[in-house]
Amino acid sequence: MIRFGGDYNPEQWPPSVWADDVDLMLRAGVNLVTVGVFAWSRLEPAPGSFDFGWLDEVLDLLQGAGIGVCLATPTASPPPWFSSEMPQNRDGVRLSYGSRDTYCVNAPSYAAASARIVDALATRYAAHPAVRLWHVHNEYGTTCYCDHCAVAFRHWLAARYSDVAVLNEAWTTDFWSQRYASFDQVRPPRATQYLGNPAHLLDYRRFGSDAMLAHYLAQKARLAASPAPVTTNFALGGWVPVDHARWAREVDVVAIDDYPETLADRAFAADLARGWARGGPWMLMEHAPSPAAREIAEPYLARGATGILYFQWRASRGGAEQWHPAMVPHAGPETPVFREICALGAALRGRAPTVVTARTALLYDEPTMWALQAPHLPAHPDYDRTVRRWHRALGAPVDVLPPGAPLAGYDLVVAPQLYLLSAAHHRALRDYVRGGGRLVLTHGTALVDDHCRVTPGALDDLLGVRVIDPWTGALDRPTAEPAPSVLENHYGAGTVRYLPADLDDLDATLRTWPRPS
Amino acid sequence: MIRFGGDYNPEQWPPSVWADDVDLMLRAGVNLVTVGVFAWSRLEPAPGSFDFGWLDEVLDLLQGAGIGVCLATPTASPPPWFSSEMPQNRDGVRLSYGSRDTYCVNAPSYAAASARIVDALATRYAAHPAVRLWHVHNEYGTTCYCDHCAVAFRHWLAARYSDVAVLNEAWTTDFWSQRYASFDQVRPPRATQYLGNPAHLLDYRRFGSDAMLAHYLAQKARLAASPAPVTTNFALGGWVPVDHARWAREVDVVAIDDYPETLADRAFAADLARGWARGGPWMLMEHAPSPAAREIAEPYLARGATGILYFQWRASRGGAEQWHPAMVPHAGPETPVFREICALGAALRGRAPTVVTARTALLYDEPTMWALQAPHLPAHPDYDRTVRRWHRALGAPVDVLPPGAPLAGYDLVVAPQLYLLSAAHHRALRDYVRGGGRLVLTHGTALVDDHCRVTPGALDDLLGVRVIDPWTGALDRPTAEPAPSVLENHYGAGTVRYLPADLDDLDATLRTWPRPS
Amino acid sequence: MIRFGGDYNPEQWPPSVWADDVDLMLRAGVNLVTVGVFAWSRLEPAPGSFDFGWLDEVLDLLQGAGIGVCLATPTASPPPWFSSEMPQNRDGVRLSYGSRDTYCVNAPSYAAASARIVDALATRYAAHPAVRLWHVHNEYGTTCYCDHCAVAFRHWLAARYSDVAVLNEAWTTDFWSQRYASFDQVRPPRATQYLGNPAHLLDYRRFGSDAMLAHYLAQKARLAASPAPVTTNFALGGWVPVDHARWAREVDVVAIDDYPETLADRAFAADLARGWARGGPWMLMEHAPSPAAREIAEPYLARGATGILYFQWRASRGGAEQWHPAMVPHAGPETPVFREICALGAALRGRAPTVVTARTALLYDEPTMWALQAPHLPAHPDYDRTVRRWHRALGAPVDVLPPGAPLAGYDLVVAPQLYLLSAAHHRALRDYVRGGGRLVLTHGTALVDDHCRVTPGALDDLLGVRVIDPWTGALDRPTAEPAPSVLENHYGAGTVRYLPADLDDLDATLRTWPRPS
Repeated sequence: MIRFGGDYNPEQWPPSVWADDVDLMLRAGVNLVTVGVFAWSRLEPAPGSFDFGWLDEVLDLLQGAGIGVCLATPTASPPPWFSSEMPQNRDGVRLSYGSRDTYCVNAPSYAAASARIVDALATRYAAHPAVRLWHVHNEYGTTCYCDHCAVAFRHWLAARYSDVAVLNEAWTTDFWSQRYASFDQVRPPRATQYLGNPAHLLDYRRFGSDAMLAHYLAQKARLAASPAPVTTNFALGGWVPVDHARWAREVDVVAIDDYPETLADRAFAADLARGWARGGPWMLMEHAPSPAAREIAEPYLARGATGILYFQWRASRGGAEQWHPAMVPHAGPETPVFREICALGAALRGRAPTVVTARTALLYDEPTMWALQAPHLPAHPDYDRTVRRWHRALGAPVDVLPPGAPLAGYDLVVAPQLYLLSAAHHRALRDYVRGGGRLVLTHGTALVDDHCRVTPGALDDLLGVRVIDPWTGALDRPTAEPAPSVLENHYGAGTVRYLPADLDDLDATLRTWPRPS
Repeated sequence: MIRFGGDYNPEQWPPSVWADDVDLMLRAGVNLVTVGVFAWSRLEPAPGSFDFGWLDEVLDLLQGAGIGVCLATPTASPPPWFSSEMPQNRDGVRLSYGSRDTYCVNAPSYAAASARIVDALATRYAAHPAVRLWHVHNEYGTTCYCDHCAVAFRHWLAARYSDVAVLNEAWTTDFWSQRYASFDQVRPPRATQYLGNPAHLLDYRRFGSDAMLAHYLAQKARLAASPAPVTTNFALGGWVPVDHARWAREVDVVAIDDYPETLADRAFAADLARGWARGGPWMLMEHAPSPAAREIAEPYLARGATGILYFQWRASRGGAEQWHPAMVPHAGPETPVFREICALGAALRGRAPTVVTARTALLYDEPTMWALQAPHLPAHPDYDRTVRRWHRALGAPVDVLPPGAPLAGYDLVVAPQLYLLSAAHHRALRDYVRGGGRLVLTHGTALVDDHCRVTPGALDDLLGVRVIDPWTGALDRPTAEPAPSVLENHYGAGTVRYLPADLDDLDATLRTWPRPS
Repeated sequence: MIRFGGDYNPEQWPPSVWADDVDLMLRAGVNLVTVGVFAWSRLEPAPGSFDFGWLDEVLDLLQGAGIGVCLATPTASPPPWFSSEMPQNRDGVRLSYGSRDTYCVNAPSYAAASARIVDALATRYAAHPAVRLWHVHNEYGTTCYCDHCAVAFRHWLAARYSDVAVLNEAWTTDFWSQRYASFDQVRPPRATQYLGNPAHLLDYRRFGSDAMLAHYLAQKARLAASPAPVTTNFALGGWVPVDHARWAREVDVVAIDDYPETLADRAFAADLARGWARGGPWMLMEHAPSPAAREIAEPYLARGATGILYFQWRASRGGAEQWHPAMVPHAGPETPVFREICALGAALRGRAPTVVTARTALLYDEPTMWALQAPHLPAHPDYDRTVRRWHRALGAPVDVLPPGAPLAGYDLVVAPQLYLLSAAHHRALRDYVRGGGRLVLTHGTALVDDHCRVTPGALDDLLGVRVIDPWTGALDRPTAEPAPSVLENHYGAGTVRYLPADLDDLDATLRTWPRPS
């Protein structure tokens, strides 16, 4: 069965609308709705004082209609009464209540408030038959620079580097007199006079991902009494400080939110989610309803989605997302959008998730994307766009994988602009080719190690040629000869192709290559 | 008599220049000069210590020459000795002395300092025969987010909503878990993590307008012993947090500052000021002197201006406006600008204000302009430019009115993109049409109520058609039919025309419509 | 002998690389390397605890190879242990450790820490035979707005103006009610509500330059026991708050860092450095290595450079400048860049500095550049670009001079857009022309005095015509006549040419003028 539904916010409407909602859900074939994402101020109107009556009623109503519930913990949007230890931005500005996502996962009072509401929800609903899935938090993604974060960052660094001398070596702190005498001297990368240290910046982003992951795992542990699986929804986008490949190991089903413009981008997101899921299930947790819902759903379904959910069921009258598309628009069900939703619901009935087998792997690495956002670089390539361009050119079916994923068995592995490459990932690529694989690399690949330190000539053995300037792809060749657009090298039992410069006609070039058998 | 003159800052010049100024004023036909706008640090060099000698001398000199004085209270620019309780911006940055307008009207120390200097001025000059008009403050318009503002905002909200449950309903706080348990939990819309609540943002702007209005009214009350009328100059522009239609009821003469680029924009500003004045007098308090002064003055005069005043009489040698145009430029009176000023002064002598009667009303609403500046909107239309475009297309004579103004008697009422429409204004439009009026509405009109809550289908009865998506103007019609560019509906004894999309040829379309009789 | 070399950071590499470095330096003909610029955290790992062993070894190694050392004081980049009294930006944000240049020269703790490390270096290395030159700090240029700066600014103002009444007159504080009752009321130009006072802004920049100069001079005094000359490297660019013409009098050799795009810009920088040096030596302390090193060096050498040094010797593996070009690139010496460096080193062997004699002077004034950056101006001309355009049009040889430099003896003096002109500089220009000189002036010249006060008609006597609007160059002439593109006036024994507007064909016009004999 394909999950079909969307975010449902009954707390925004009087109970008289709820029955109408259930009728319309049944008409549309909805079988799963996400409830409670932003309901904290209704569930806990004052600290420690709970009001679950309305949620009991909603869950019973849905259960009665046979509609499953993806029950959210509401911690992404603390209520107005939560105002201590608010997050600080790079400038030290203490943020104020008034939006959503205004919290610091390293603040003790926020951790305590999170635990209290999650425990209360778990106690009350762990055994509720409507609950088919837990939805922890919402789109983790805030970055904070407060003193709590400073302390947590130092602990994280101490665990990662054990000795400050190792950190100094990893961060090249002899540059610009940044050598630390102890972990206590390290601060978050707050506003400073000029360019920051790229290793410092990257590690702070990794730390942020791990700190949020700890917050997620603490909630997951509190939900253990429930038989329902647990997930959190992944927001895509270069700004998101979450290492999804790492997080994917901690969710029972990979769930993505996808708000792209093109069908090709949807196909990429689907292949990416499937890659993160490593053979497990994945679903589309949020996307925008539209009069073209069936066409839009197809790229996800064809690539294995086990669920097609929208943000949101019914359009909000007020608030910052009042104009966000909805399955039931402001103008009501007698609209092109709702009619299309019903048609899609009917089409999904009885359809099973597609099983996908791909022979080509495309490597995609979020830490590389973060490293390429550093302001000190001589160029600012759009890594995400580059990988998406290769995805389009390769065509289906492709597995989009993190560089640490097993590669044996793929006919072709493509690693475009993989700027940051750890020693382990270097080995993995060589093992793959040595075992007979076909690997495609491009300029801009393997320029630095996982601490952003330059690794000159790191690919020379694989490429069979000496790279002089990996940013421009310049090779050590007689200048009179025109540079080839593709170099090929035999390595072990396999082959490596290298593109020293961007190809204007990437699609045409790929068509001339032998297809994976 | 038409008032003619400008801002005069004798405190910037030695007394030897003053006599020369008066001679030149007489040569130019000047009959009113605004004195003292930025003279606080000269009038009160230390807290509570006053120096009025120079101002006595200036007023006597002008009185002796028969030149009237528009006497300003200098509160828009506190002196360097005023440095406590300075305003804070959204980020909490405490602003510093060094410009002008750096104050918070909700700070008790500023209110006290304002009262002290105004009382001193009132005591000394209430009966001075040169004083023809009081000019309170200058271009009200600062926004502050300090704790004094937080307290005042809560009082304002409590007065407006009486119960926090009403505020929660009005602001749709069930969205994103923003439900308040008490007014004490509400804060100014300071820097936060993501998008703010549009109703919160709009109410803060309304509050800011009301807080400044209270500051103005407190000054006006202190000037009551003087027989001269009282006004303050209105700065035009989308950034100004002042609801001028509301303020216009509290000034004895509407006074605007206008710094546009085109003659059409001047005509719009004049019709707008006349609309705010509701049949009372209005004047142009500031505009820029130029060698085309006569041509530039004409749109204002033709639309009823009772005064043509400039910023400024004599160019300042230093300071941030040293390069601002002046009636007496740096190069002195032997210049094209001053010669033109003299020619205009001569042309105004004996001319009476024009009486204007218009049969067409164009609605213009500053709260709608503010609501359309909210960052959460799917599009960011330039409301001011849209209304100005209609104004140009309609041609003269047009009354530009706030939506609450009486409409009976107009042959035609045009309400372009009136995004925010209260229930009272809904009724007013229907009453007008029902009574035989002709009303023109466009897409983007009446999308939300006065708390920014979506009001789907709010115009359907007036239009005689169902609007599916008011942002795009999409109607509930067979898609095969091309959408008409103008829909017409009979309603009561009148008619309504609706434009579901922008017209490229608005002017041409209007020419085909019957003219107001 | 021409100095040839670059910045050398042995602290970033293990000692095993040092011997290789010296071999390569000898191969390249390097005779001077700058050592220790960013080594503070290695030289003083904890406050007051020094480690000079590695630097002893490096200096001995270089001395043994006959390579001279330009020994830096490392104060531009305090170590992580220095974290008190960090600088604040205009908004009051306290900057954090994590980059370089994060210090406030007016903070007592920073002054004390600077003195301690400089004393230690002076004590140990004053007599070291390898030390040929002292390099104080690096690219002075930070601006701070903290309370220490406020106090120092007031002292600076009191020394400059002696009485606050003089400051009030100089700053035109009667505009916008800014009259100060005492120096204690003056603050740095921190974030404020609207435009700042231009005289306030300009004086704060002058103060910043003087405050940093005091920091430099304090270090220079501490190095007095060493026979080696002392300098600091000047960063070019409009943002740099350093009055280089003033500073040039305090360095034993003028040293510039130059990172331009064109050869013409390099020629300008060289003529500028020579002008600052006033007949003394100057050198290129930093520029970027490139495969075109010989061609790039030529404009500097032809204009008298006594040294050609690069940033940097060996590319850094990590840190914010890891991708900055280097004489020894990441890919090592077998690269086009290092081969070219060797070729240049060979070409320099035995070459002597060029002696330059110019008959044309082009005036360039950094305070004018700063004054033209003020936000209140009606236009925002790019002063630096304007002067560079004239430099290109004039062709070599030209002396680029500050307005206070002696002009007698030049056949031609050109002063483009010299917005700010003090009374002394007014006199200097007149003296020059009166004595038979030929002076070229343009619109936008002498608009204000050195306190940014408008000086209408200030050039009229020199030009023999009345300027009505110096921004646009408008003259007091019958409008029917077309304005001439160049006006010529005889004054004393000399002539003045005035360009009332920009010339599209400046180069062509100049070719028609008689050349300096």
